[in-house]
Amino acid sequence: MAHIDFADGLPGIRGPMVFSPETTEPLCELVQVLLTGPHSLTAAERELIATCVSSENDCYYCQHCHGSTAAQHLGGGDADYDFVAAVKRDFESSGLSPKMKALLNIACKVQKGGKQVSTADVERARREGTTDKEIHDAVLIAAAFCMFNRYVDGLATWQPRDPEIYREIGQQTSRLGYVGRDYKKPLEAIAAKHHPSVEKSAER
Amino acid sequence: MAHIDFADGLPGIRGPMVFSPETTEPLCELVQVLLTGPHSLTAAERELIATCVSSENDCYYCQHCHGSTAAQHLGGGDADYDFVAAVKRDFESSGLSPKMKALLNIACKVQKGGKQVSTADVERARREGTTDKEIHDAVLIAAAFCMFNRYVDGLATWQPRDPEIYREIGQQTSRLGYVGRDYKKPLEAIAAKHHPSVEKSAER
Repeated sequence: MAHIDFADGLPGIRGPMVFSPETTEPLCELVQVLLTGPHSLTAAERELIATCVSSENDCYYCQHCHGSTAAQHLGGGDADYDFVAAVKRDFESSGLSPKMKALLNIACKVQKGGKQVSTADVERARREGTTDKEIHDAVLIAAAFCMFNRYVDGLATWQPRDPEIYREIGQQTSRLGYVGRDYKKPLEAIAAKHHPSVEKSAER
Repeated sequence: MAHIDFADGLPGIRGPMVFSPETTEPLCELVQVLLTGPHSLTAAERELIATCVSSENDCYYCQHCHGSTAAQHLGGGDADYDFVAAVKRDFESSGLSPKMKALLNIACKVQKGGKQVSTADVERARREGTTDKEIHDAVLIAAAFCMFNRYVDGLATWQPRDPEIYREIGQQTSRLGYVGRDYKKPLEAIAAKHHPSVEKSAER
């Protein structure tokens, strides 16, 4: 059971988002700016930074939402979901570019603590051709997901395990972004099969 | 030296804020909603949550900015600064209310990781009369400062040690809040005495 009283049937951050619309607005605006729109890193690459940090923080909901969004940006096939899983498992041995590996190395240092990022980490990224903006954004995406993960887990939100739910979230988010959406609207994968009031205690 | 190129003379988060105005807007909006305005917790109490989390994350800049803002809200005298220091050192033995101690206990669990917040922690807060909104806001303030601290330290920003700088920031922030301010404007305590280009490497 969540630590405070959320509306039924809203997984993960959607409970707190509906509970506190006045903080939801800047939070959505922040991820919209960081993860969507034109950028020298693709939307999939930025979602992968969010995914890896959420995985390191062991936040089930966030790593599966953003991993699914990354996979959908890449095409949405099974191979894309497998690729995301491989990056989460060990990004250094994955098929990502050397530049992305250097940025993920910085992001994973930020996850442990800001002071963990060394001059050598930044020099590695520079050698792979990263810009100041890419380093800035990798640090802020990593830092922001250290917030989102703690927000979602710190309130003990409902985090169902059905992959179909995360596939639907990834499809929605890759298409619509984060701002101006109705997060109260039930997900089809939940409305069709799940009874959150029963599952709330079992699936946290 | 900071990991990326910031304008001279801007301490802590002000460098990144000026570097990236498109993310600064939602970040300022978020702290404005969380830390200012009418609330069942005073502005000083909410700033103390930000201060303690920043202290646990060992972020010099954030703990001194928000500690000074808390002290200014309390009156701005030496005794108020001493009180903030005592809360940072050990909030359980401080003069804070039992309700604030219970909320700080939750916030410090969130700092370690969202899953650290236990049902017992929340039950303790309930016994002291906290509302769902107070628990939600304590969790989100703590989570947000896990982001801000990593943003400030992860980019190795300039964090001067002169207490006068933090006194000036606390005076400004307690009076003006976080939104709509000109963060590029040099602080008087820096313009008067400091030459950041020389100090940048020494005072990180």
